[in-house]
Amino acid sequence: MSDHPLRVAVLGGPGTYTDAAAGTFFGDSIQIIGKSDFDGIFEAVSTGQVERGIVPIENSLAGSIHRNYDLLLRHDLSIIGETQIHIAHQLIALPGVELADVKKVYSHPQPLAQCEQTLSNLLPEAEQISARDTVSSVKQLIEQNITDGAALASERAAQIYNLNIIKANMQDNSENYTRFVAISPEPVAPPADAKTSIVYSMDNLPGSLFKSLAVFALRDIDLTKIESRPLQGKRWQYFFYIDFLGSMAEERCQNALNHLQEITTFFKVLGSYPRGC
Amino acid sequence: MSDHPLRVAVLGGPGTYTDAAAGTFFGDSIQIIGKSDFDGIFEAVSTGQVERGIVPIENSLAGSIHRNYDLLLRHDLSIIGETQIHIAHQLIALPGVELADVKKVYSHPQPLAQCEQTLSNLLPEAEQISARDTVSSVKQLIEQNITDGAALASERAAQIYNLNIIKANMQDNSENYTRFVAISPEPVAPPADAKTSIVYSMDNLPGSLFKSLAVFALRDIDLTKIESRPLQGKRWQYFFYIDFLGSMAEERCQNALNHLQEITTFFKVLGSYPRGC
Repeated sequence: MSDHPLRVAVLGGPGTYTDAAAGTFFGDSIQIIGKSDFDGIFEAVSTGQVERGIVPIENSLAGSIHRNYDLLLRHDLSIIGETQIHIAHQLIALPGVELADVKKVYSHPQPLAQCEQTLSNLLPEAEQISARDTVSSVKQLIEQNITDGAALASERAAQIYNLNIIKANMQDNSENYTRFVAISPEPVAPPADAKTSIVYSMDNLPGSLFKSLAVFALRDIDLTKIESRPLQGKRWQYFFYIDFLGSMAEERCQNALNHLQEITTFFKVLGSYPRGC
Repeated sequence: MSDHPLRVAVLGGPGTYTDAAAGTFFGDSIQIIGKSDFDGIFEAVSTGQVERGIVPIENSLAGSIHRNYDLLLRHDLSIIGETQIHIAHQLIALPGVELADVKKVYSHPQPLAQCEQTLSNLLPEAEQISARDTVSSVKQLIEQNITDGAALASERAAQIYNLNIIKANMQDNSENYTRFVAISPEPVAPPADAKTSIVYSMDNLPGSLFKSLAVFALRDIDLTKIESRPLQGKRWQYFFYIDFLGSMAEERCQNALNHLQEITTFFKVLGSYPRGC
C-alpha cells in the first residue's frame, strides 16, 4: 500500500466537469493531476504517473465523446467504474464585460456543441474558439485580459476564478448529463450488479451485426449502449462498442463472449465494473 | 418545367467539399446557392428557395456528421441520392506566411478533427478556431489579413483565392472519404439497385435493438449503416438511423418496415434512392 493519496488524472484542473466527476467517483481524499487533453489522461495512467484517470464517454444531448472511445481501443487499460453528473454551462466573463461586448466564445468543443442553439440565437455573429478544457477557456480570459469574449464553463469555475456569470444555463436542454468512466491499468473484480464494456469488429458480411447481437439476446443479456466508429483505413467498416448488464465473472456472459469471438475479427473487453448509471 | 437551372444549396460557396459533391452528383449545369450552416441548407430546401440541397452525412475517419442526422429528423425532406468524394486537407496561408508563423488554425470542426494528430504533432500550441465552412476560413485569412494563422481547406479553395499551400495533405489518414446525401422536398421513385434510410426509436426494453434488426435479417435485407443519436430530453434513450440495401417499391422491404412499426414508438422513412456508394 502506497503512502500517498490516490493520484487521478483529469482534464484541465479544479473546476472542470471531469474534476467534478473525479470527486463524485473517488471522493475528496485524492490528488488531482490535470492534463491538457484526453490523450494525456490515458498516457498518465498507462505510464504509471497516476493510478487512475477519469474521462467523459457520453453526453445525453450531444452523444458519444468519440475521442475517448478511440483511446480506450488504443490503450491497454480497464474501465473500473462509471458515474454521471448533471451539466450546466454558464457564460462567464471578466468584470465589466457585458453580453453585447461578446464577439468570441471560448470553450471545449463539447460545451460549444451543447449550447449550439442558445449561442446561435443569443450571439449569432460570435466566433467560437476551441479550448483544451472549460477551465482553460476561463483562464484564457484572465491571462489575455479578453474584454470582447466570454467562456462556457461550470458555476464552480466562475467561483474559483472570481469572474462574472453574464448569462446562466446556456445549454440547449436542461436534461444535460454526462457519463464518465474511471480507468486503471488493472481490471477490478466485478460485483454482482455489474456492467461490461466491449469493442469488436467483424468482416462486413450481411447480417453480421444482427448475429453479434444474437449472442446477447439468446442469453437474455440486456444491452445499454451501442456505438459504431469507423475502422481507420477501411472505408465504411466499423468497430462496435457495446455495454451490457452483466459481469465477466458470470458464466452466461463468458459464454456469450466466447460465442461472439467465433464471429468477430477483433475483440477486446474494455472492463467489467460496478453499474453506476 | 421551370426555365432556370436547378438550384442547389451547399455549405459556403465555390471551393467547399459540399460544392464539389454537388458538382459530382448534379453535374455542372446547376446554380449553387451558398449557405452559412447546415441548418440553412435544410431551410432553403424546405421553404422552396432552392430545389435541392446536399449535405455530408458520414466521414470514413471521423464518423457521422450528427448535426445532419438531427436535421434529417427535424425536416420533412427526402434523401434522393448519395455520392462520396475523397477528402484532402491543405494548410493554406497568405503569401509570406510560413509554418513557424502559424499560431491559429481556422477551419470547420470536421476538418480540424480529421487532422487532429497531424496538427498536434506539427502545431501543438496552435489555437483551433471554428469556421462555418472551409472556404470561410480561407476568406477570413484574406479579409482580416491574418499573418499568424492558416486555414484547412481543399486545394481548389487555395487556387480560387490565390493563396499558398504551406503544408499539403494534413489529414491523419489518406483513406479519407466523405459520403454526402442529396435532399429534396419530394421523394424519387427508387430504382432496382436502391438504398433506403430510416430512423426509429423504441421503448427501452431489453433486446429491443436486436428485435428491430431481426425484421431485416429474417428477410435477408443487408444493413450498410447503423447510427444511434440521443433522444433529447430522455436520458440514455436513442434514435436509431439505419441504411439498408433495398427499395421502398419492393414487397420484402415494405413487409420489413411494416413489421418494424409493430415494435417502434417512432418511425420515419428518410428516403429510398439509387445506391451511389
